[in-house]
Amino acid sequence: MVLLIISLVVGFATLLYLTLTVLDKSPGNEKTEKLSHIIQRGARSFLFQEYVVFFPIVLALALLFLLTTGYKSAISFLIGSIFSVLSGFFGMTIATKSNARTAWGAMKGVGEALDIAFSGGAVMGLTVSVLGLLGLFVVYNVFGLEAVSFYSLGASFVALFARVGGGIYTKAADVGADIVGKVEANLPEDDPRNPAVIADNVGDNVGDVAGMGADLYESYVGSIFSGIALGYALLGQRGVVNTLSIVSFGLLASIIGIVFVKVLSKLNTDPAVALRSGTVVSSVVFLILSFAYSFVEKDLKLFWTVLIGNIVGVLIGLITEWYTSGRKVEKLAHSAAMGPANVIISGTALGMESTAMITILIAIGTLLSYKINQLYGIAIAGVGMLATLAMNLSVDAYGPIADNAGGIAQMAGLEKHVREITDKLDALGNTTAAMGKGFAIGSAALTAIALFANFGATAHVEQVLLRDPSTFIGALIGSMLTFYFSALTMNAVGDAANDMVEEIRRQIREIPGILLGTAEPDYESCIRIATKGALKRMVAPALLAIISPIVLMKLLGVQAVAGLLIGSTVSGVALAIFMANSGGAWDNAKKYVEEGHLGGKGSFTHKATVVGDTVGDPFKDTAGPSLNILIKLMAITAIVFYQLAGR
Amino acid sequence: MVLLIISLVVGFATLLYLTLTVLDKSPGNEKTEKLSHIIQRGARSFLFQEYVVFFPIVLALALLFLLTTGYKSAISFLIGSIFSVLSGFFGMTIATKSNARTAWGAMKGVGEALDIAFSGGAVMGLTVSVLGLLGLFVVYNVFGLEAVSFYSLGASFVALFARVGGGIYTKAADVGADIVGKVEANLPEDDPRNPAVIADNVGDNVGDVAGMGADLYESYVGSIFSGIALGYALLGQRGVVNTLSIVSFGLLASIIGIVFVKVLSKLNTDPAVALRSGTVVSSVVFLILSFAYSFVEKDLKLFWTVLIGNIVGVLIGLITEWYTSGRKVEKLAHSAAMGPANVIISGTALGMESTAMITILIAIGTLLSYKINQLYGIAIAGVGMLATLAMNLSVDAYGPIADNAGGIAQMAGLEKHVREITDKLDALGNTTAAMGKGFAIGSAALTAIALFANFGATAHVEQVLLRDPSTFIGALIGSMLTFYFSALTMNAVGDAANDMVEEIRRQIREIPGILLGTAEPDYESCIRIATKGALKRMVAPALLAIISPIVLMKLLGVQAVAGLLIGSTVSGVALAIFMANSGGAWDNAKKYVEEGHLGGKGSFTHKATVVGDTVGDPFKDTAGPSLNILIKLMAITAIVFYQLAGR
Repeated sequence: MVLLIISLVVGFATLLYLTLTVLDKSPGNEKTEKLSHIIQRGARSFLFQEYVVFFPIVLALALLFLLTTGYKSAISFLIGSIFSVLSGFFGMTIATKSNARTAWGAMKGVGEALDIAFSGGAVMGLTVSVLGLLGLFVVYNVFGLEAVSFYSLGASFVALFARVGGGIYTKAADVGADIVGKVEANLPEDDPRNPAVIADNVGDNVGDVAGMGADLYESYVGSIFSGIALGYALLGQRGVVNTLSIVSFGLLASIIGIVFVKVLSKLNTDPAVALRSGTVVSSVVFLILSFAYSFVEKDLKLFWTVLIGNIVGVLIGLITEWYTSGRKVEKLAHSAAMGPANVIISGTALGMESTAMITILIAIGTLLSYKINQLYGIAIAGVGMLATLAMNLSVDAYGPIADNAGGIAQMAGLEKHVREITDKLDALGNTTAAMGKGFAIGSAALTAIALFANFGATAHVEQVLLRDPSTFIGALIGSMLTFYFSALTMNAVGDAANDMVEEIRRQIREIPGILLGTAEPDYESCIRIATKGALKRMVAPALLAIISPIVLMKLLGVQAVAGLLIGSTVSGVALAIFMANSGGAWDNAKKYVEEGHLGGKGSFTHKATVVGDTVGDPFKDTAGPSLNILIKLMAITAIVFYQLAGR
Repeated sequence: MVLLIISLVVGFATLLYLTLTVLDKSPGNEKTEKLSHIIQRGARSFLFQEYVVFFPIVLALALLFLLTTGYKSAISFLIGSIFSVLSGFFGMTIATKSNARTAWGAMKGVGEALDIAFSGGAVMGLTVSVLGLLGLFVVYNVFGLEAVSFYSLGASFVALFARVGGGIYTKAADVGADIVGKVEANLPEDDPRNPAVIADNVGDNVGDVAGMGADLYESYVGSIFSGIALGYALLGQRGVVNTLSIVSFGLLASIIGIVFVKVLSKLNTDPAVALRSGTVVSSVVFLILSFAYSFVEKDLKLFWTVLIGNIVGVLIGLITEWYTSGRKVEKLAHSAAMGPANVIISGTALGMESTAMITILIAIGTLLSYKINQLYGIAIAGVGMLATLAMNLSVDAYGPIADNAGGIAQMAGLEKHVREITDKLDALGNTTAAMGKGFAIGSAALTAIALFANFGATAHVEQVLLRDPSTFIGALIGSMLTFYFSALTMNAVGDAANDMVEEIRRQIREIPGILLGTAEPDYESCIRIATKGALKRMVAPALLAIISPIVLMKLLGVQAVAGLLIGSTVSGVALAIFMANSGGAWDNAKKYVEEGHLGGKGSFTHKATVVGDTVGDPFKDTAGPSLNILIKLMAITAIVFYQLAGR
């Protein structure tokens, strides 16, 4: 526990230092500052309205827990929810303050721009990690192990809203801006005459920063929860301490990695080298510390499972990269030469094919870590993947900051080489983030399996009877829910995008000066409409996840809920991999053609790849990632409500 | 058993009569006869080459069974395989003899055309039903209950090859003919100048007739097998007799329905009324006979589960219709106005959404029939859905005959009103077949659940331990396999279509008279290439299904195989529903626009719906239906190989 406190203190200090570093930089001239301000206001306003939508539900659930399982669980649930909200809000605020500063910093050179953008991202990464651990520390020590599941439920609950709501917003704004702005009105990307241009930049922040932050907050907390619970079941107090030690090493290693990147960027190292070295350094330091600890504690099993988790994570990342770049993407782009239908069929097949190797890797990882250390081993493999989250999330969150910086540079009319620098940083973020996605998918699967085992232990379901079809029925329903959930989120993106398209068309029609650049478009109205559209449509999918295990438990009993969790996990994992990789491959096929291959921009082949990319957007940025949260949220809901009903 | 013999004799007599009726009709003039002959030769040649590919595997497996479990299982397996082949071959031969006769008959009027086309379809329907039952009767009485699983395996094994191979062929030819013929060379549908036009018609026969026949042969046999096995487990000999009686009533009721349609067509009734009345009559007669039997035997539980199966089947059919016609399709067509990407996203979401109600219906049906009559109840609900298969398949197989007749009429230059009649009959077949699809999906799910229970009984797996993750790992792999299998089949269609496109382009380039109509294209060469392309690519997906349960059993044991079957069934059912309904909706959205809505043919919206339709083709006609076979084949393989390894 001392270790945990030390790493928390160091984490807080680094966080404070990074925040002050970012705020200390100049936000640029009047124009860039104003643009940054509008984006920040839009993003904040979205978050506030999002809170207004889901906070009543959070409070109602807390009240329910208060009345049934007592104040401990109610408060733990609230801490989980509020800390998740806080980390998303704080991380995003600093991210929106970093964008103009990055653009301005790019005037001094690539090293300065990298330093600011990465520091902004690292604030997000450290906030999630530090707040996640702090909340866990408080809940575990004050209220005990049982309350941790409620803490984890709070985190997952908020995460699903944030991911779904943010995902709908960002894609609706993106699609809207593309369809009317780029295609119909022939405006370039990030042109200030496009009424949706600010909404698009706001979307990057609420979706890719705040939404992803909440997502990873829940993954982090969920994996640690399952590690603590299964560790306690196997080894008692020692299992809890081991889990928390591993996590502490991860946080410390991440801080070292972050500092490393900052030093390299001050030395004007190539950004690609800087980011990749930072990631490698934090992984190596983490593994060395874990090994030393296991060696000293004479429990090498712990280290082996951590190592398995990391190897599986890296391999999934490599497979993901293989399917979404290089030869696979070139072949996909070639199929586009035969038209949009072919690129859709080939891309769909590509994503479905990619499930094979990734699932087999997850299976091998699960099996090995189970053989080494039983269910606790599976949980620790998941924890091992996410332990250096602070570093990985820093890289993830830096991407949208660089993207935003590019938008601001364009809109504010900064020199051309500024845009070139931010574009380079942005592209780099995409490549480095691919590895992070592998870790996210792998850890989601492992954590879901661990949570399922946890549910079995909580509900005293030792076995599933094959003679009784209720498990099978539950599994059918669980599988179906992942498809239905995806349909809901994709339809939400489509409908919200329609609202946007109509608003942009209206503005271009009614405000004649817009396209000439003599009148300013009504940015705020587009932001408002995207916000309203996303919030209205995020409630149904989110509630589905929480209500279905409860309903099934009431109607068909515990055996059916066990089936539900199996069905939703196995279908959800496959669907999530398929959607992420089809979407990623389509995106990169379009970029490949835009680099000048197969006729380049504007060619028939290019138009076909644009269709693929547009289809891929809701796949990879809305439905796909939300599925990872969905399957875990259903498991945690089942655990918590069994405790509740069991009283 | 007497009942079964009677219904078999009546079935054979009707079959003979219908065959003679069809052959008695005139195949028309020299041109239509020649075209029909080329189609028949191409289709037969495909089937023969298909047999050459998979028969060595069938023989190897039979030899394996001979050496391990003895001659009884080897012969039963061979009977299952060969009867499946025979029914596909005979049914398709008569179908290819009916097409020109239907076209020629249409000159006399719609009643005559309906009579011939429906009689041709009914030959297929009756052949599958009669041969399926005959084989079962022989195997059960000569070799006993244990051998029936080998019979069922033979049927499933051949079915997967026939469905996948036929599915690849028909879509490759279709896509090839469309892309070069219709889009690039601007030829109308079924134009004799299109080199792939005959291959396209051959495809209808090997895919929609022979492939579907083998598919339903395996569904029929599989459901009866599970009914017999679980009936015997619950009630002993009585359970077997009950199951076979229900099936006999289904066959007799179908024959009555078939005769009814023939009488109505002689009376020149509206074809829509004739077909629908026939279906209703056979269902009603079947239910009345089942009720009378249950009442006399004082076992009303039997009737209730038959009724549940039928109600669930009808409701699934209605939901399917709701999602693939009317307002849903109009909305989908409207989304096409925003471009191909939108129609793909909306159609994908539509198909995924449709899984919800259908799965819930399957769940309710499973649960109710289990409450009434335990696992036997679930099996009988599945049997009840398929009992009137002879009637339903007659309607299904009549569609491609009418379609072919239209093609021949066009190519032979028959009068315009002939084509109008065949088009009308073709469209009608599509609508009536929607109901049949509901029964196919529902019965596949119920049969898979029953087979799973059967596997549990065979392998003495009473329960699945939640502490042991091997079940979960098996389920993850099972789910993944359905995605991977779909990827393989879709890629196969894409690659085979590419081969076709190149061949058609080559012919148009190298034989200058083709487009002018002065030189005849090399039809045979297109048929050869489609055949080669399909056969080469059908082996991998088919072997996947049979090898994976065996490998998993060896590596991880019975518990993992139980997981494999759960995972493949729950994901496979959802994927199959999604693909079938997305594909159906895209198809009908295109037709809706072609009827003159939203700009009609040639408009921007129309082009977008064509993209949807092209994507939907491999979804609904190759990957989707093959999944239904895949999940059952995996279950039967697991049962058979456990018996084999258990010795």
